[in-house]
Amino acid sequence: MTLSRRRLLGAGAAAVGMGALGAACGAPAATPVPDGVVPFRGEHQAGIVTPAQDRLHFVSLDVVTADRAEVADLLRRWTAAAERMTAGAETTPGGATGGNPNSPPDDTGEALGLPPAALTLTFGVGASLFAKLGLDPSLVPPALAALPPFRGDQLDPALSGGDLCVQACSDDPQVAVHAVRNLVRMGFGVTAVRWSQLGFGRTSSTSTSQATPRNLFGFKDGTHNVKAEDPDDLREQVWVAPGDGPAWLDGGTYLVARRIRMHVEIWDRTSLAEQETIIGRTKGVGAPLGGTAEFDLADYAAVDGTGEPRIAQNAHIRLASAQALGGVKILRRGYNFVDGSDGQGHLDAGLFFVAFMRDPQAQFVPMQRALADADVLMEYIEHTGSAVFACPAGLGGGGYWGQSLLEA
Amino acid sequence: MTLSRRRLLGAGAAAVGMGALGAACGAPAATPVPDGVVPFRGEHQAGIVTPAQDRLHFVSLDVVTADRAEVADLLRRWTAAAERMTAGAETTPGGATGGNPNSPPDDTGEALGLPPAALTLTFGVGASLFAKLGLDPSLVPPALAALPPFRGDQLDPALSGGDLCVQACSDDPQVAVHAVRNLVRMGFGVTAVRWSQLGFGRTSSTSTSQATPRNLFGFKDGTHNVKAEDPDDLREQVWVAPGDGPAWLDGGTYLVARRIRMHVEIWDRTSLAEQETIIGRTKGVGAPLGGTAEFDLADYAAVDGTGEPRIAQNAHIRLASAQALGGVKILRRGYNFVDGSDGQGHLDAGLFFVAFMRDPQAQFVPMQRALADADVLMEYIEHTGSAVFACPAGLGGGGYWGQSLLEA
Repeated sequence: MTLSRRRLLGAGAAAVGMGALGAACGAPAATPVPDGVVPFRGEHQAGIVTPAQDRLHFVSLDVVTADRAEVADLLRRWTAAAERMTAGAETTPGGATGGNPNSPPDDTGEALGLPPAALTLTFGVGASLFAKLGLDPSLVPPALAALPPFRGDQLDPALSGGDLCVQACSDDPQVAVHAVRNLVRMGFGVTAVRWSQLGFGRTSSTSTSQATPRNLFGFKDGTHNVKAEDPDDLREQVWVAPGDGPAWLDGGTYLVARRIRMHVEIWDRTSLAEQETIIGRTKGVGAPLGGTAEFDLADYAAVDGTGEPRIAQNAHIRLASAQALGGVKILRRGYNFVDGSDGQGHLDAGLFFVAFMRDPQAQFVPMQRALADADVLMEYIEHTGSAVFACPAGLGGGGYWGQSLLEA
Repeated sequence: MTLSRRRLLGAGAAAVGMGALGAACGAPAATPVPDGVVPFRGEHQAGIVTPAQDRLHFVSLDVVTADRAEVADLLRRWTAAAERMTAGAETTPGGATGGNPNSPPDDTGEALGLPPAALTLTFGVGASLFAKLGLDPSLVPPALAALPPFRGDQLDPALSGGDLCVQACSDDPQVAVHAVRNLVRMGFGVTAVRWSQLGFGRTSSTSTSQATPRNLFGFKDGTHNVKAEDPDDLREQVWVAPGDGPAWLDGGTYLVARRIRMHVEIWDRTSLAEQETIIGRTKGVGAPLGGTAEFDLADYAAVDGTGEPRIAQNAHIRLASAQALGGVKILRRGYNFVDGSDGQGHLDAGLFFVAFMRDPQAQFVPMQRALADADVLMEYIEHTGSAVFACPAGLGGGGYWGQSLLEA
């Protein structure tokens, strides 16, 4: 991937065109083309089933105006900028418009010369937006209701919620940070940063083409994640269908974010056997206990020589399994983070959990309740932030982020 | 770079052997060999003139014991672990020793299967260590004296100082984080994390083989940095020579770290022409004003049609130039960071400045004083953390981190 963002202008534009064409034919959101450009427009937003990129910059924003037209204007400009940035098309130090040297550049420049690096930008709206903009209450999807409190929650309001979100994923963190920073800059006077989170390494695969990465407990994470290659799972578990709720979200999905502090120091003093019992998998290859390879199906009925279940009743993988949850799955797309230290001699490290699903109330809530109530892993982690956003369908048919809602 | 850490065990060990051999022959610290292993042992520590890797995890630690033998024991164990990790040699989920399943693993595992990714670990000691361990005051290098206050400093004690530091650099952030986390884990009871900093993108080149990257102001940074290929600069500006101070630091260097918050929102509202005037270079190719290419020498005497200097008297590059500072240079090795948001609607982003030099009092202090007093850039930045560490010579001749000091 050695093409510069500048030289990719032509190729990027062509790829975007192909993406739109694919969407018009009803094809799923496209995967990266060889030059590292993920098409911005498609049936669904990019950055959901796109093979999870290596790095994340996530931002939650508060809208600081009640003027719907101002917000719509910003969303139009954001959409144009997002389309330009994901195509890798910075053209001059003055920005896309060439640049009057006596004006502030319309691009901040730190990604000049960098490749597109599979940048995706995924947009969502929080439940708090509706009242703020005086939108009709019938437009609030019931599935966007606030999450209930879970046992052990230690949520910091300053790291939770938000009226809007943008998830920037890229294989180059500077490209992801550049994109968020430029959207934040454009939002001045209309939006303000509520919280933001950098993720340095992916913890999930969203495609069978990817190896399963490891989280900061050292275990492979997301072996049985929903994958882009399973159309049934995507239809049943991820995409909002007509009739699920208000029509503006048809073809969209919900994003649940949880900032999970991991007390790695305590985990690191736990024996290997105990770690594997808590998770229900081996640490090395990631096989379910009793199996030998990562993708072996877990045998939850198997018992050991003493009649005890081979995979404990409260093992993490059992509690979170589709079997235990009546077929419920989610598409996880989280990232490891380290946010400096905690002032008490420890790293402030963990998992920024991001997952996409068709209905948080029917999917995330029962899963998280089962884990919060019984998972021994809860002794080693702490949920410190939480947010839910509704992410509209893709813009394959034209238009701008949020148009289906603001013009509903 | 597709070899796993496990499969690299043999190759890594061989590379380390070659590094030690190189050092014995008086060769400079080696650059990465093709399999992504940077030799741990050499005449100088790795991670200084090593071509700057893409990602950083830096940790400053307080020693929480006064027992010198305990500290020496930890430093011995740290050295063995550092040598193992930089060679990419995690072998089992139990760690290097294979692992008793009923004991905590001796490696935390999240880098299992990852390539060595050019990991380097660079060790330093702060001035506060000497009194804490009751070391002879004659061992304190005069050049390790506290930095004077600079105009505009907004230093947070919680982000400053420290008894020990480890700089982990790698092309894979998970590899860098894994290394720091494991050293922190091993230090339990002897050291505690004082502060740590993740850097997502390098802002300097330390080799002529590298392109100059951009900082978060969008400008190329470090065009005339000291480079590994200039033995005169390294000898005069970077490595501590016999007679400079106490002998335990001969062949070492000093590390100056400054956490620099950048008020990118204000910068982004400044015109392109003003930005270029403040820096003294063009934003696009990074040419000095009046020049056309990045590596053109700045002509500080040139005037424009009205007789004004083409490069302003207070331009950043003029104030920081070797010409203005009587020949003083430093080897910069900094990283861009984003640490979430500031609670006031803005990103908490900036530059984690790291530089290596032979004498901070004679090099960093006059440079920073000149910038703090006259650089217009100071209106856009804020120094929020500061530390100085003495980094001993490499371990090409054997031994452990800090041995030359503790056994002096």
